[in-house]
Parts: sequence; structure tokens; C-alpha cells
Amino acid sequence: MKHNNLELLERYQLQPYAGPHALTPHLNDSDNRKQRKLYRELQQAVEASQLKDGMTISFHHSFRGGDKTINLVMDVLAEMGLKNLTLAPSSLSDVHSPLLEHIRNGVVRKIYTSGLRGELAEEISRGLMEEPIHIHSHGGRVHLVESGEIDIDVAFLAVSTSDEFGNANAVTGKARCGSLGYAQIDAKYAKHTILLTEQIVPFPNQPASIAQDSVDAIVEIASVGDASKIGGGATRMTSNPRELLIARKAAEVIEHSGYFYDGFSMQTGSGGASLAVTRFLEEKMQRNQIKASFALGGITSTMVDLHEKGLIKTLLDVQSFDANAADSMSRNPGHIEISANQYANPASKGAAVEKLDVVILSALEIDTEFNVNVISGSDGVIRGASGGHSDTAASANLTIIVAPLVRGRIPTVVNSVLNIVTPGSQIDVLVTDHGIAVNPSRPEVASRLKKMGIDLMSIEQLQQRAQLLTGEPRAIQYTDKVVGVIRYRDGSVIDVIKQVKE
Amino acid sequence: MKHNNLELLERYQLQPYAGPHALTPHLNDSDNRKQRKLYRELQQAVEASQLKDGMTISFHHSFRGGDKTINLVMDVLAEMGLKNLTLAPSSLSDVHSPLLEHIRNGVVRKIYTSGLRGELAEEISRGLMEEPIHIHSHGGRVHLVESGEIDIDVAFLAVSTSDEFGNANAVTGKARCGSLGYAQIDAKYAKHTILLTEQIVPFPNQPASIAQDSVDAIVEIASVGDASKIGGGATRMTSNPRELLIARKAAEVIEHSGYFYDGFSMQTGSGGASLAVTRFLEEKMQRNQIKASFALGGITSTMVDLHEKGLIKTLLDVQSFDANAADSMSRNPGHIEISANQYANPASKGAAVEKLDVVILSALEIDTEFNVNVISGSDGVIRGASGGHSDTAASANLTIIVAPLVRGRIPTVVNSVLNIVTPGSQIDVLVTDHGIAVNPSRPEVASRLKKMGIDLMSIEQLQQRAQLLTGEPRAIQYTDKVVGVIRYRDGSVIDVIKQVKE
Repeated sequence: MKHNNLELLERYQLQPYAGPHALTPHLNDSDNRKQRKLYRELQQAVEASQLKDGMTISFHHSFRGGDKTINLVMDVLAEMGLKNLTLAPSSLSDVHSPLLEHIRNGVVRKIYTSGLRGELAEEISRGLMEEPIHIHSHGGRVHLVESGEIDIDVAFLAVSTSDEFGNANAVTGKARCGSLGYAQIDAKYAKHTILLTEQIVPFPNQPASIAQDSVDAIVEIASVGDASKIGGGATRMTSNPRELLIARKAAEVIEHSGYFYDGFSMQTGSGGASLAVTRFLEEKMQRNQIKASFALGGITSTMVDLHEKGLIKTLLDVQSFDANAADSMSRNPGHIEISANQYANPASKGAAVEKLDVVILSALEIDTEFNVNVISGSDGVIRGASGGHSDTAASANLTIIVAPLVRGRIPTVVNSVLNIVTPGSQIDVLVTDHGIAVNPSRPEVASRLKKMGIDLMSIEQLQQRAQLLTGEPRAIQYTDKVVGVIRYRDGSVIDVIKQVKE
Repeated sequence: MKHNNLELLERYQLQPYAGPHALTPHLNDSDNRKQRKLYRELQQAVEASQLKDGMTISFHHSFRGGDKTINLVMDVLAEMGLKNLTLAPSSLSDVHSPLLEHIRNGVVRKIYTSGLRGELAEEISRGLMEEPIHIHSHGGRVHLVESGEIDIDVAFLAVSTSDEFGNANAVTGKARCGSLGYAQIDAKYAKHTILLTEQIVPFPNQPASIAQDSVDAIVEIASVGDASKIGGGATRMTSNPRELLIARKAAEVIEHSGYFYDGFSMQTGSGGASLAVTRFLEEKMQRNQIKASFALGGITSTMVDLHEKGLIKTLLDVQSFDANAADSMSRNPGHIEISANQYANPASKGAAVEKLDVVILSALEIDTEFNVNVISGSDGVIRGASGGHSDTAASANLTIIVAPLVRGRIPTVVNSVLNIVTPGSQIDVLVTDHGIAVNPSRPEVASRLKKMGIDLMSIEQLQQRAQLLTGEPRAIQYTDKVVGVIRYRDGSVIDVIKQVKE
């Protein structure tokens, strides 16, 4: 400091100059500057992160069933002896059953996730964990992170390419899962972000879905995920005739709902019938010279196809639902990556779900109050995901549930769902293979549909028909133990999942 | 909530479900949803922001001398009777002299800025304000914002286009200033962000330099800025023979410095000679088959030209230095917008300045310790800007100052600068029209240059030659009052500016 002025420093509580690199000591070390974020071994990066017992770690789920990162990282953390971690991935799937061992060994004590399936879900439903898991929506997760309930200490984020400074994406390189809309939240809020990349490329790597200023460490590993498995399971395109029938009916409902106009917008949730609706809308859009302004959410190949035909102007992609959709993001300038905050956070200054005209969603169960369960099966065991269900339902102008009336001997339309994920007040239409019901709260929609010759039933009629086909479902035997807490998108508790008896 | 469970709510301090829109009351009002961020008059938007006396407001300076927003907004705030505001634009220029009245009337009480010029700077230097102004670097500003010293209550951000949800840019529409790298910081950290746009376009507007989830309000106004004036003043391309001579010499220094290799990176600061260096590097790059990996910072037409010729792979643009550079950002996929945090924040997890090989900067004064003054003239009056000077100097592998030895009767190389902005320890080479000096701390650079036949002088020799030409400068008469505090990039006080006597 040239002019000494202690009085001024004191008055404004300022510090005097203390050398050029007081805040940037790494700049004194010219040798280490280029490499300072690179770690040869994951364990070294974890040590540098100062991850401790009891802390919270996170992952993104954009590889869905193709994810290889969570199991790999958890094995390393377990080997390092870490305990009592809170695991907060954006979601889990059935490839994550190795977590069972880490739960049993005390490595993982608590879980936040949008959903879970398979053996892990089964065991948790049967009371494996001391702490209940928390099920959140995709938008709700951002709110929980932002508000500090999910206070991410270290995020482990899989990418296909990164430069040595942390500019990373999943649209170049090998394991291209496309949008990193969920990972962006973790990168933004985590105290420490470790990238797992298949490839280190020259600076500056572009596009930077995750940018250098949110990355602390980078580790190159052989494989972070299998992009070909993203489209498996929940995001497959159906060839099931019943699902196609439901999808065709749903497209008719959209056409005559009052929300099918030039410039309308749409989202389809995962699930066969839901995804197939887009296919049936195409012909209607062509015939009526209607173009959509945007499609939102999980972006599918079918949507990419419509985009490339000029029928959907913009794709807002928080998660690419298959490998083809992932690749579209790098070739189509109108295929835009958005963060989970921009997608669906109810506390966001602007969540795109609020601009939606129509959303088509699935259900495991829907009851005569239109309440929807997408988290537990008819046996009470967890086998699903909250996803963007309640986010879009609460926000779109028209929310349509597509579901078969019965699945085998199991009714979909019931008197009372086992678990509520999305409140019935936010559901407008139910389309099944046995008929269509409109929520009595939307008489104007019902009258538009009837005017166009679409037959409607009451949801009670659908429930009765389902019961006729399956018989009265046997009541599930639960214990008093809460194994899961279902959080509504605003963080409130909309339901709990009880332990099922063996 | 389906299963009532008070004990659980209490144990985890959770709230029960209280309706679908407890956190999103605006979703209950279907009529207002589309328009909820739009305000017909700026005053209404200000009222909705709850801006109060004593709060902090901010602006970006990407229109430089073409800015029309600050004066317009300040007039409205003054009319509304607001007082004692802290004004924290990323910078100010000589078009902002109307602020004088707002300071005199008590509307503005404190100022943070990278620089200021003209009548406003003159009056402040003569003691107009009770509170000293704070001069920060571009990177340092982000650190001050992030650390809460600049706690932005309301940001007023000029853009050329925005949709009704706040997705905005300055590369489409009329007033295209290009990169909104500074504005992005304000949008991220301000409690309330008001966009001033010349045009409302259909949702979703792309690219979204500023995205919907950081915007509270949008006001359409006739003109936010004159893009043709961005390139005026400090960013003009010189035709001055002396500046061209200096630029040519600086290009030679770069060529033989050891930092001119295939894949090198560079930045040029504002100022005639500095900007002209790029022009002279082109021929050397062609001849030596050297391509730059990236150019950083304020991006100029000349850099765009080299980029389009394939000589610079990527342009990392925090601020487009002229209208042509602004337009390049939308047509060149390798011309990337970066935020001021990604550019230069010393507390950032990754500031691009740290990847720089060479930076060429200007100086109003440089002393025999290589300390640089870019903020005050030889009369002690403020007439400059800190900009990215200390950020790049502290970070690049080679920092070159280009300056004429004397300006009229005023020496540039002096025994002791009137004010330090960048410490001499971070300056490596001085190139003047009378000779070149290398900082003794960089003997390896000096020896490389000498080996290639470049004559060097000591900085003392340059100072003596300057003094020979201009005579001993008359000492400035200061009072004891501090009118400006010069903050180093880490927030510490590196110098103060005293009031000059009339």
C-alpha cells in the first residue's frame, strides 16, 4: 500500500495489500498451475476434498441404467473407511443394488433420491435402513439443495470430456448422455466438485455444460457410463398395442382439449404410453399446420425427429432420454440444455414447467380423487420415481395421465392410492385403455372433449371396471416403521412409505 | 398428507403438505402467469423490487460509451425520491456525468466501479463525495459481490432481447453489445433483477446469456444503448504511427519471449497500442505456423478476424469490444461468452486469466519498480479504469505493458506512480517507443530477447530519458481527504486516491 491509511482501513474494515497472491497461492507455483486440478487416482481426489464421515455426497442420474459412477465411487469411499454418509444422487436405478452392502456396512446412512428400483428398493421397503429415505421430485431436489437441507459436501459428476480446468460436457467423447441439467445443480451448490471423465481434452473444452469455475478436481477413469443403456427401461419406445392405443387416445384428447394451437408446448414423462403420444401428435400437427414452440423435460428421439422436421421449434433438455437425443444436442442449435432449476424448481425465479401447455404422465396407481402414485407397486414395495411428475402436474395447463386400467391382476385405478406423489387436484385427465375420465374440477375440458365426440366416463366408473376385472385388491400388511418420506415439490411431506411385512 | 405422522415431522423438522401451490401462489392465478414478470413502466418494476433508501443497485458496462441505461434508471429513482443509494456498476464512463446531480442531491451516496472518466471523475477527484469511491478490478468485483461487500439489492440489466420469462441476450435485436459476461454476475447474485430490454420476443429466447431463473422483472424501453459507441474511446483501433510502432515492437517481444508457440494464448487490454498488437502478431503466426488456442477478455474485431482465419481456435469473451465482435458471437460457435467469474475472479475455482500465456496492457504511468497506474492522470485526477489489468497481470505467464514514453509534456515512465493499480512484481516487460525494459525478476525473458537481437534498456534509463524530454514533473498538491480507495483484485487496499487541490 502506497499511502498508509490505517484509519481508513479500520473505518471500512478493509485489509491492506499483502502481496499479489495472498488469495491465489497456487499462482506462486508455476509448475503446478496447469495440473493443479488433475488427480491420477480417485482416492487422491477424495482425500483432497476433505470428505469426512457423516457428510453428504451427490451424483447425477443422466446415464440412468447405464450409470457406472455411483458404484465405482462408493466402493472407493468404502475402502477408504468412510461411514455414515448421506447419499444424495438426483436419482437411483436398479443397477445400484451394490449400495445394499454399503448400507449394511454403515458407509451410507441416509438417502435422498427421486426414485429407486430393484433389489435396493425392495430391501429398503422391507426396513433395511434405520433412517427413512427421502423421495423428492426433480424440481423439489433443487429446492432442497438451495435451502440447505441437502447440503452437498462433495459432488461426484460423470462427464464424457473435460479439459484440465474442468470445462466439461457429455455431448463429445464416448459416453455421451447429453444434457447435464441435473449435474449443473450439484456443480453449482456442492462445496467441492470432483469430475469423473473418460477423456481429458485441450482447454478450453466447449460446450461447457459444467464450467471451470465450479470444478475442484478431475479424475480420468476408463468408463463413466454406458449411453446405450439410457434409453432402456423407463424411457423405451413401446411396441405394446395397449400402450399404443392409450397413446393414440391421449393424442386425441390433446387435439381437442383447447391446448392444441400453433405455438403450444408439451412434455411427455417416461413410460411407454407417455412417450408414444408424441408419435401420434405428429400427424395431427401436420394436418392442422400446428407447430409447437417447445418441448420440455426428458427429450426423446421422437421429439428430436419432430424438431428436425420443424414441428417443434425448441427442445429444452434437462435430461436426454436416449443416446440419439443426447447426440442431437450437439448438432441442433435449437436443442438447448437447461438446468434442473430452470426446468422445475418451484422456488426458482423461472421454471420452464410453468410455461407448459400439456404434459403427459404415467401412473402406477391413480385413485378416484385423481391422486397419483408413481413410487410404490401394488405390493407396497418401492419401484418407481417421483421425477418431474408433481412439478409438471402443478404447472402445466393440462395434465394428462396415461395408464392401462389394469396391469395383469393389478388395478391401476383404485379407491385410494397406496402412496401419493402428485395430488389429484393437479391432474386433469386420465386416459386408459378402457375409457377416459376428466377431473370434475375441469368441466370446460370435459365439455370440449364431449363436443368432439370423445366418450368420457367418471373415474369411479373406471375404478369399478378395474375392480370387476381384478377383484378387490388384498390390503397390504405394513408395520409402523416409516421407510420413506415422500416430499412434495415444495419440500413438505405429502406422504410416507411404511415398511411392508415379509 | 395421507399418513399423518407428527412425530416424524417433528423429528426431522419437516412441514406437512399444505396444498399444491403453497410455494408457488402465482400458479393459482392462471391469468397472470404469462405476464407476471412484465411491467409497463420502470417505476412499477422498481416498486415491485422493494428498493429502499440506502440499498445497493448495479448495472453492467458492456455498452461502454454507448450506455443509455444508467442515466435513465437513475433519473427514475431520483424522481421516486430514493436516497443514499450505493451505485455498483461494473464500470462507468464519461457519458455518466448526469450522476453528478444525483450525488449532489443525495440520491447516490457511495460508488463502486472499475473506473470513471470525464466530468464525473473530475468532480469526484476534487472532493465531491463524502464517501470515497471504491475502484475494483473486473475479477475483484466478482469477489466483492460474492463475499457480500457489494450486496446487490436490485440489478438493472440492459439487454437487446428478452422473452416474457427473462431469457435474454445482447446478440439478437438492435442494441447488440455481445457478451453479457459482467451482467451475468449481477443476475446471479442480485436479490432482485430487472431487465431493461428493447424487445420482447417469444419464449424461449435463445441464447440465454441471462436465464429466466435469475430474472424478476422485465421492462421494455425504446433504447438501452448504442452499440456503435462501444468501440469508441478506449477500444478504438489506432492509426497513430507511434502506437503502431509500439505495437510492432511488442509483437516482436512476444515472438521471442518463449511464450509464442503453437497453442499459446493471449489477451490484449484496451488502448490503441495494446489492441494493435494482434494485427502484428498475425503475420508472425502465419509465418511460424503458430495458432493460438484461445484469446481472452475484451474481444475485438481483429481477434474475430484471426479466429475466422483459423489462427485463434477459441474466443473467450467477457465483453465484446466493438459491434463487429458482438455480432461474431452469434455466428461463430467458437466465440464463447464467459462470465466475469470465469474470466478473472481470483476467488473463483477457475479463472481463465490463469491459463493465459501473454497479456498486453496499457499504462497511464509506470514507475521504476514497474508499478502501474491506470486510474489517474499526471494531474492526480481520475481518468481511467482498473479493468482486468491486475487480474491478468497477476495470472499470465508474460505481462507486457505498452505505452509511449511521454505523452505531450507528460512522462509515462516515472520514479513513482501517483497511484498503484497493479503491483510491479506482476509486470514483466515494458515496451515504449524509446526502448524496451524487462523486469529484473525475469532474467530468462531478457536473455531470450537479447539473443534474438532485441535491444533492452533498464527501466531507470527509460525514466531518465522521459525526464530529459519533459523535465521534472511538478508535484501534485493533494489534501488529506481520501476520494478513492483502490482495491487489489483480492479486495485488499493497494492504494488510495487523495483529493487534488484546485
